[in-house]
Amino acid sequence: MDTQAMKTYRYFLKDSIRKRINFRNTDQNRNISPPPIQNPCPADAKRIDLPGPKEWENIAPVDLTQAIANRKSHRKYLAQSLSKEELAYLLWTTQGLRESPTHGHAYRTVPSAGCRHAFETYLAVFNVEELEPGIYRYLPLDHQLVFEFSDEMLSEKMIHGSLGQTYPGRSAVTFIWVAVPYRMEWRYGLAAHKVIALDAGHVCQNLYLACEAVGAGTCAIAAYDQEEMDEFLGLDGENEFVIYLAPVGKI
Amino acid sequence: MDTQAMKTYRYFLKDSIRKRINFRNTDQNRNISPPPIQNPCPADAKRIDLPGPKEWENIAPVDLTQAIANRKSHRKYLAQSLSKEELAYLLWTTQGLRESPTHGHAYRTVPSAGCRHAFETYLAVFNVEELEPGIYRYLPLDHQLVFEFSDEMLSEKMIHGSLGQTYPGRSAVTFIWVAVPYRMEWRYGLAAHKVIALDAGHVCQNLYLACEAVGAGTCAIAAYDQEEMDEFLGLDGENEFVIYLAPVGKI
Repeated sequence: MDTQAMKTYRYFLKDSIRKRINFRNTDQNRNISPPPIQNPCPADAKRIDLPGPKEWENIAPVDLTQAIANRKSHRKYLAQSLSKEELAYLLWTTQGLRESPTHGHAYRTVPSAGCRHAFETYLAVFNVEELEPGIYRYLPLDHQLVFEFSDEMLSEKMIHGSLGQTYPGRSAVTFIWVAVPYRMEWRYGLAAHKVIALDAGHVCQNLYLACEAVGAGTCAIAAYDQEEMDEFLGLDGENEFVIYLAPVGKI
Repeated sequence: MDTQAMKTYRYFLKDSIRKRINFRNTDQNRNISPPPIQNPCPADAKRIDLPGPKEWENIAPVDLTQAIANRKSHRKYLAQSLSKEELAYLLWTTQGLRESPTHGHAYRTVPSAGCRHAFETYLAVFNVEELEPGIYRYLPLDHQLVFEFSDEMLSEKMIHGSLGQTYPGRSAVTFIWVAVPYRMEWRYGLAAHKVIALDAGHVCQNLYLACEAVGAGTCAIAAYDQEEMDEFLGLDGENEFVIYLAPVGKI
């Protein structure tokens, strides 16, 4: 193996960088306004309301310890649909707000370094009640979905973009987390990137556990064609890019 | 901000690297034996048995959705101790095995890319029943602790190594996750490092939630003095190094 390259890559997992950063030069400390905590959508976008925590009627209680003990990766799913409520639950557990935003912060159901939450959640919807198949995006501040686009080849494109792995194209819904790195860089500069990856892990673990409450399963995917997936979602690949995926379906 | 450096760091969060890796050259595909899934300890090491899932008597049932809703970062803890059972529970939820190892794999309570689990869990123990204060390491295959060393200045050193943040030195116990990158590189080469960070996020999220079942709280720490913490734990900083910390205490 290329030892020098390995060193460089290992360095990314360390916090040695912090001592080399002049935090007076971060955009936050230069009094530059923070980027929005949720990417905007066009005024005429098709938005879909999702039921909130107080409206859920069919989310089964499940003991945390049992959920942790039962959790495993599932790559095969039943043809059964997810209800809109179940999808709303999974979105809330992974990126939902746990209280109203204050001072430009929105505390969520997952922790994030400096409460920056540098993600957008895209969904490839195949089989969710009341939703046409297609690509959607979650709006955590509004607890809504916004319809992005449909594609007759959605399943094939998800499979091809996942390097031939079939389950992201044969799920009820596939979560596609997109990094918006500047949200974190604004505060942390070059110390942003490691914590973005840690944060994506927090999010995905909640999805694994939340699946246990809705009779579903998931299996995280870190192997995908970066450029192809970014292009498919209309992301520029630099300021926004796919970071992690997780297909979900009934088991 | 330095745009070129930012690009390099953002690249780390992408999966573009995968297309550049010749997987025939990974150590796994060159038939090199995998590294051990748990670092060894000396024959005369002091090992402490931990109660396993079937022996727990005081882990309260807690609804998963409530745990997710209640979870928040806690930086102040009561002077109260954790029981050994509670600590055993937290260790099991974060790195414990959920079934016996087979074919060199040990499936755990958290997912890991390729089931590689490239971590060792160190603990700075301050106030846990039946345990002398000091540094310990968790042995997931044995569900035991191994005593590493004690230090009269443990609290001060944890605080100094955390860049002056006081709560890692004023907890009941502080989890210190150490990356062992070769475990993942053996299989994935340069595609190892992003997924190690994602995995560390999975682990930490389970700790956050598990704290809800034992009346405790935590707050993840990604800002620390890398070289100082590594040296303190006796890690070489290259093949093993600190990646993430999380102090835990009763709230």
